[in-house]
Amino acid sequence: MAANAVSLSISSTVASPKTPHSLEAQTRGLIPPPTISFPKSSSSLSSTAISISRSRVRAGPSQLVNEPANAMATPPTIVEVDLGSRSYPIYIGAGLLDQSHLLQRHVHGKKVLVVTNERVAPLYLDKTVHALTIGNPNVTVESVILPDGEKYKDMDTLMKVFDKAIESRLDRRSTFVALGGGVIGDMCGYAAASYLRGVNFIQIPTTVMAQVDSSVGGKTGINHRLGKNLIGAFYQPQCVLVDTDTLNTLPDREMASGLAEVIKYGLIRDADFFEWQEKNIEALLARDPAALAYAIKRSCENKADVVSQDEKESGLRATLNLGHTFGHAIETGFGYGEWLHGEAVAAGTVMAVDMSYRLGWIDDSIVERVNNILKRAKLPTTPPESMTVSMFKSIMAVDKKVADGLLRLILLKGPLGNCVFTGDYDREALDATLRAFSKS
Amino acid sequence: MAANAVSLSISSTVASPKTPHSLEAQTRGLIPPPTISFPKSSSSLSSTAISISRSRVRAGPSQLVNEPANAMATPPTIVEVDLGSRSYPIYIGAGLLDQSHLLQRHVHGKKVLVVTNERVAPLYLDKTVHALTIGNPNVTVESVILPDGEKYKDMDTLMKVFDKAIESRLDRRSTFVALGGGVIGDMCGYAAASYLRGVNFIQIPTTVMAQVDSSVGGKTGINHRLGKNLIGAFYQPQCVLVDTDTLNTLPDREMASGLAEVIKYGLIRDADFFEWQEKNIEALLARDPAALAYAIKRSCENKADVVSQDEKESGLRATLNLGHTFGHAIETGFGYGEWLHGEAVAAGTVMAVDMSYRLGWIDDSIVERVNNILKRAKLPTTPPESMTVSMFKSIMAVDKKVADGLLRLILLKGPLGNCVFTGDYDREALDATLRAFSKS
Repeated sequence: MAANAVSLSISSTVASPKTPHSLEAQTRGLIPPPTISFPKSSSSLSSTAISISRSRVRAGPSQLVNEPANAMATPPTIVEVDLGSRSYPIYIGAGLLDQSHLLQRHVHGKKVLVVTNERVAPLYLDKTVHALTIGNPNVTVESVILPDGEKYKDMDTLMKVFDKAIESRLDRRSTFVALGGGVIGDMCGYAAASYLRGVNFIQIPTTVMAQVDSSVGGKTGINHRLGKNLIGAFYQPQCVLVDTDTLNTLPDREMASGLAEVIKYGLIRDADFFEWQEKNIEALLARDPAALAYAIKRSCENKADVVSQDEKESGLRATLNLGHTFGHAIETGFGYGEWLHGEAVAAGTVMAVDMSYRLGWIDDSIVERVNNILKRAKLPTTPPESMTVSMFKSIMAVDKKVADGLLRLILLKGPLGNCVFTGDYDREALDATLRAFSKS
Repeated sequence: MAANAVSLSISSTVASPKTPHSLEAQTRGLIPPPTISFPKSSSSLSSTAISISRSRVRAGPSQLVNEPANAMATPPTIVEVDLGSRSYPIYIGAGLLDQSHLLQRHVHGKKVLVVTNERVAPLYLDKTVHALTIGNPNVTVESVILPDGEKYKDMDTLMKVFDKAIESRLDRRSTFVALGGGVIGDMCGYAAASYLRGVNFIQIPTTVMAQVDSSVGGKTGINHRLGKNLIGAFYQPQCVLVDTDTLNTLPDREMASGLAEVIKYGLIRDADFFEWQEKNIEALLARDPAALAYAIKRSCENKADVVSQDEKESGLRATLNLGHTFGHAIETGFGYGEWLHGEAVAAGTVMAVDMSYRLGWIDDSIVERVNNILKRAKLPTTPPESMTVSMFKSIMAVDKKVADGLLRLILLKGPLGNCVFTGDYDREALDATLRAFSKS
């Protein structure tokens, strides 16, 4: 299967009309522009330059891994996350779970705990255990199978991981392996960060959402009944292994959910990538292997670049949360698990874009293009009907991006591919957006 | 109150006889000496050199803090924990909770959460809130009062801290303050490490145990029913404020418990300090302010020196756990809260010293001196009668110092003030010690 991005042929032209528009919000005497702005990514990430060489992100076909045991295997594409002593590779490709050396080189100690869920275990647990142990008899693998879904991303479920680790007598030189989607990755990562004050871990994401976003960058954690991801740690894995073959079993709704994050990268920092998506969104939904591999690689490059510059989210990294403040409110208010994360982010992105437009920071062509691509990706563009203005406000008040009582948001500003992270916006615009998208 | 160590006059002579002895264990054909050994601390930490200037530990009367608001206040002694960007000061002295600027300079953001317990709150919570807020009207202080005792150092109790933080809408720029003993410090620190993936925190230890050991160095965490401190994080505070006046309300048993850790520093790396303790143990028990301040300062210097060299416990730092592997087994096996931590450590220290002697690594004068000083400190020198050999073995098997299945221990080796951290010892000696101190 030719899932490697190298073989992709990509057009670099765009067609969407950009009509300058007199904005309603511009007439309201808004506050001055915010102080932190993030220009779109450098041209080295343009969609025509597949072979990328940058100071912080290294990726491309030149970085191949030798596979002595299986000379016919396709070597993975590697994206490096550059974090000094905590740097690690992201391996991307088809059939990587069959290339056991990729995992085994990152296993520390003699005991491994695979954390997975009831849906993924029947599909990939045996394969993962095989990859960890073949030709490696010194390693023993335990596993813990959690219930599936965002509503189980809580302390009670996390305790099952600790219970299993302790009962299995895993010591400091053990390795935790997250096998599953974003919920499993976040929980396993936080368990690894906390168990004996920190053991090594490996991410094997099996959803688009996890492969393009949540498995990369070290954000781990669990939900609290009053808010998402309120308890957790910044904790980096030893490696991320993205076997694109695992997407063959992904439900369509999960597929679409992951694309919300792919679209995000284009909007906040990579206009060329967004334009590529506008041409290829149906190919992605149809799981065209080459298109998927390219979208995953390009997303990981964007994420790695941001995380390398701002690991602990003091500024730039927050921009990865476009649409997430509104989206988290939907997930929390509507009940974890009713909507998938990417579905909530999609509706949240439309709200953030609407607010950006009301502030006069973007023109209406961007609003239209965002709505169009999300609809084509089969994603919702409005929050659930049960959400009210006051629900949004009370949940957003405990968002992690609140500082000294001020809610900071990621908003688009300027041409496509540019955004700001700011608390310096007209409160009227936020209220207007909330009223436009939810009942009072 | 002249609690500052500067005024202390200390004798530097020692009297304890050291009789060379033909050791039983030497006749058994033991395995070769272990590879990692730790000589006693450098002479700059000798008991006659009060004014210390070292590359990693800075302390002494020259580092005084100006107190514009209260010119009569005694300036604190400052011990600096040198951890690069995570460095912080330990302030030591009497009446420091009345010197509000010491705390206020380390408060980040506008909201503070004080975590304390039912015993400490009536004594020092109002005073702490006053110190945080006087002349500082922008800061609001919330508090959460936990039940008192090691048996509450668990996930259920930790969740009360998160609940309170979220309900109070504490954001990323908040500060958590631990007001209490080691349990409160460990739990508040872990809560601060995990809340919103990390907020700032301050330690105000109110027991000798916390002042000389647990509040310094960033080890935080909670217990699991199967073992102590198995879930946690390395997370450094912004500062540690040791107001020695808080010891005036400390029960005698808690007082003695803290001395177990003071004695530990002497045994593992500071023979001069041990010899000073042999002269001053009754003064410490009687809460002589100058003796206490000196013991706290000297203990913090030793701890800061070790932590600065090995923050994440890859080797040297483990030596601070002399007696703790046996001690944790006692705490876990006997039930958290039955014995105080220092009481279990005292019995565990006797066991570690006994095993060191059986291995032929120390002479019997050290065994005798350790037993003597612990008895004078009113500490137990044997484990509870209900502990069995198999209880010790099964609990010690999940100790954090197990690596790849091998239990590493801190044992004394050589003259007073020298120890090793090793898994390279005769298992017979461990078995003999367990049999000598517990029923089979």
